[in-house]
Amino acid sequence: MSQFLIPDLKEEMVLTERFITEYLAPVSLNQTVDHIFSHVLSARGKRLRPQLLLLAGRYGKYYHEKRECLCRLGALVELVHLASLIHDDIVDDSPLRRGRPTVQAHFGKDMAVYAGDLVLSRAMQILFSEKFYEAGKWFGITIEKMCTGEIGQYARKFQPETGIEDYRRNIYGKTAALFELACRLGASEAGCDREMSAFLESIGRNFGMLFQMRDDLLDYLSVEEKEGKPTGRDFEEGILTLPVLYALEAPDYADEIRTLIRLAKEGDFHGEERKRLSALIRESGGMKKALRDYRELSHELARQVGHLPAQKETKMFAAILEKLAVPI
Amino acid sequence: MSQFLIPDLKEEMVLTERFITEYLAPVSLNQTVDHIFSHVLSARGKRLRPQLLLLAGRYGKYYHEKRECLCRLGALVELVHLASLIHDDIVDDSPLRRGRPTVQAHFGKDMAVYAGDLVLSRAMQILFSEKFYEAGKWFGITIEKMCTGEIGQYARKFQPETGIEDYRRNIYGKTAALFELACRLGASEAGCDREMSAFLESIGRNFGMLFQMRDDLLDYLSVEEKEGKPTGRDFEEGILTLPVLYALEAPDYADEIRTLIRLAKEGDFHGEERKRLSALIRESGGMKKALRDYRELSHELARQVGHLPAQKETKMFAAILEKLAVPI
Repeated sequence: MSQFLIPDLKEEMVLTERFITEYLAPVSLNQTVDHIFSHVLSARGKRLRPQLLLLAGRYGKYYHEKRECLCRLGALVELVHLASLIHDDIVDDSPLRRGRPTVQAHFGKDMAVYAGDLVLSRAMQILFSEKFYEAGKWFGITIEKMCTGEIGQYARKFQPETGIEDYRRNIYGKTAALFELACRLGASEAGCDREMSAFLESIGRNFGMLFQMRDDLLDYLSVEEKEGKPTGRDFEEGILTLPVLYALEAPDYADEIRTLIRLAKEGDFHGEERKRLSALIRESGGMKKALRDYRELSHELARQVGHLPAQKETKMFAAILEKLAVPI
Repeated sequence: MSQFLIPDLKEEMVLTERFITEYLAPVSLNQTVDHIFSHVLSARGKRLRPQLLLLAGRYGKYYHEKRECLCRLGALVELVHLASLIHDDIVDDSPLRRGRPTVQAHFGKDMAVYAGDLVLSRAMQILFSEKFYEAGKWFGITIEKMCTGEIGQYARKFQPETGIEDYRRNIYGKTAALFELACRLGASEAGCDREMSAFLESIGRNFGMLFQMRDDLLDYLSVEEKEGKPTGRDFEEGILTLPVLYALEAPDYADEIRTLIRLAKEGDFHGEERKRLSALIRESGGMKKALRDYRELSHELARQVGHLPAQKETKMFAAILEKLAVPI
């Protein structure tokens, strides 16, 4: 997953990257603000969202005329993503992201609050100055969804009563909503008709859901000895994801998992508890059910992609989907 | 200052309040998000910025036709103000605001990050859905200025090398820029010509500067015994305002003030140090110079207000200015 670039989109991604750099250009008289912008710019991500936006755009009849616009919109989607990462890293207390210190680790949590706002205000300025009025409305709605998802997740921390539906609603907000927006913007800007736009939007949403579910599953599937990453880091933070939520539904296992949740809340979740949790998730059938859900969604998405017109982008969508397979 | 309402604006302010309530209406399925919106709504502020916007609008020829628009813009300016308060309270670790728990105290710092984003995303949504495109561009620019001012202030914490110009630049961003925007929007939306708009904008900016300078002066002028508020709370937080910056320019006092800054940074700033700082600020002439600057700006503003057309709103501007006098 480290290099996600779709070769066919290379030219557009060069342009998109140029817009991201332009939009985050330091122009202020304030040195610290300039440093923040440079720091945000130097963190090279996969740029997955702009690439999905461009792929969706390829199904529209005006793709070529609208290429520059689409790259600008892709850059804006990435800006909103970057702003959200800055704020998420405050909440998660993350020291690193993609191997580099996060804004909160480098500049402090307080600065990171304003740094996120700053990046968001840049996105807002460009939306108005480039007259992306229809898109802007959807950006606003999506940012609200993203906040709602994060707040929903936070409010459910350490709560064994969290339902599968809560989980789905929260990952839709925190992750899938922006994927959905990317595909919506790409399709509608490039002139897809309403039906096709809605279909691509739904594909974007499902990609986002799958992407987050994969991330959540990997937290329990990473092999500590091999990868040096302990499992259950989400659990330690109180974030209960699909395997745990399903395990909690198994009467013979719920009590012990509740105990582990309490220990995690009290900061007493260590090697022994970590191992026990992994065992409980497997024995209870929680992991199996979570993987089943993941595969079902993956198949549903493959089916949707299969219904797209036969053109090379459809193969690219399928290729991304393959990369998203959980490695077990 | 507790009740700032200009009686003549009552009708408009009722409408503005209705829009604020409408814009922050909880519509989500997420209970916590609904609670956050209710909490933000129930904190009744002075609504000073929407009132300045309306006053500026009164100088335009289309005030009556544009009344509803102006109230909507006033509500949006207030939303941006409320969002900034939520984020400022995280950074300042404030337990209370206007006698009520802050969002960060009530819901925790992490939630407050998203709560501020949520309020901002509402403002963004309304700007697009109400087609306030020209205003929206200026909102974006102003939010960047606000962040830049806050970051600038934060970067200068505990730094005796902070210059008077740094101070001015930072309070312009953190406070005056939004006052300036309020007057700009009021004037231009109501149809003032370019010259008049620029003049009202400059009045707004000066009001904002004066407002912040007043706040900063009061931090050293409050009488502890009488008001129960210790002086030098900004200093304790590392925020060096005008009286301290001028005191640092006095060669005989700089060293001792630097020592106090170091103590404050180390958390050793208590009753004794507080008293000593007050004394140093007075003896060094720092307070005198800060008050001189304050009075000069106040006179400049009075002079500007005096040049406004002879209509009742000009008297109202003058009345607000009088209320802003520092009580010594």
